[in-house]
Amino acid sequence: MQTVFSVRTSGPGLYEFTGEVARFVRETGCREGLLTLFVQHTSCSLLVQENADPDVQRDLQEFFRRLVPSSDDPSMRWLKHTTEGPDDMPAHIKAALTAVSLSIPVTDGRTALGTWQGIYLFEHRHGAQRRRVVAHIGA
Amino acid sequence: MQTVFSVRTSGPGLYEFTGEVARFVRETGCREGLLTLFVQHTSCSLLVQENADPDVQRDLQEFFRRLVPSSDDPSMRWLKHTTEGPDDMPAHIKAALTAVSLSIPVTDGRTALGTWQGIYLFEHRHGAQRRRVVAHIGA
Amino acid sequence: MQTVFSVRTSGPGLYEFTGEVARFVRETGCREGLLTLFVQHTSCSLLVQENADPDVQRDLQEFFRRLVPSSDDPSMRWLKHTTEGPDDMPAHIKAALTAVSLSIPVTDGRTALGTWQGIYLFEHRHGAQRRRVVAHIGA
Repeated sequence: MQTVFSVRTSGPGLYEFTGEVARFVRETGCREGLLTLFVQHTSCSLLVQENADPDVQRDLQEFFRRLVPSSDDPSMRWLKHTTEGPDDMPAHIKAALTAVSLSIPVTDGRTALGTWQGIYLFEHRHGAQRRRVVAHIGA
Repeated sequence: MQTVFSVRTSGPGLYEFTGEVARFVRETGCREGLLTLFVQHTSCSLLVQENADPDVQRDLQEFFRRLVPSSDDPSMRWLKHTTEGPDDMPAHIKAALTAVSLSIPVTDGRTALGTWQGIYLFEHRHGAQRRRVVAHIGA
Repeated sequence: MQTVFSVRTSGPGLYEFTGEVARFVRETGCREGLLTLFVQHTSCSLLVQENADPDVQRDLQEFFRRLVPSSDDPSMRWLKHTTEGPDDMPAHIKAALTAVSLSIPVTDGRTALGTWQGIYLFEHRHGAQRRRVVAHIGA
């Protein structure tokens, strides 16, 4: 069974959609299986991370901002792909450093997430976006 | 078929559990399929890496220690999530840079690992931990 | 159903094999399912990235070259695993920072890649190599 999640974003950061995923798993009636998520873009990514303290999410985003500064930062002058804006090529790099797909076992009808784990769309671009994540549940 | 591996760790580094995974695959009797591993934590991760020279594992750990220093390092003063210890937020970041899930085909009754590949729990925290990795074998 | 892709490389960079993957999916006759790719090496990796502007691929490679310089660079003097050449340990690190496995849903007989997404073998070593990627299609 498959579906597509649509996640609206408005600038860099983590957007949780654990609830939508849980609902999909429930609706399929799957008791034991494997859920796979795949994001259809190259300038955002997927992340399973702590959903307790929002500072964790802010620190994560800030780390990536410092590791891969904007194209107009003097330290990034060597970048060539700059025509789509100063946030575009850094977004591709951040996506390469994180995950395009995630697989999570389904056990007793629920995703086997740990106590503090949430599922996030990690947006790396500045403008408003509508991101597509394909979900597949298999045996 | 599913199981949960319990991996005990005692500080940052790579803990191999390739043998436990191989035993599980054998016990399921699966000849051709897909093995997926999922770690239920946000401050450790999964890694497939060389299991020949232990220096590779030490160098990997040291690279990540330099890339994401402890919260009490002057270069990391901007971190906000510091209440759980100076190794906690860096651990979340290192987890985000590596994998929470891994999928490995099963061929002729064995995981299709390359000659030098081992499966590791990559611990990022300092204290002793007991980490849970859910394994799923599917068609 | 499984197959093994053989990807020839000649130095660091991204080598696209989206076409080979698409052909395999077609040949299996799978309409809806999950494709998983797994690379059997520890000094190259897998990447889904933009396949429109080749500068994106050059910038990606250059970012990783700057983040993880060669062993003979003064900044990397702390590396211990140097016997297999100055590009070897950095290659292991770059592989750890990217993906050893990728899972992509198959929808209506095709991989559910986004418009601009291509599948790449990300080579991190300097010499000519022949890389093996195991593909599995499941339910």
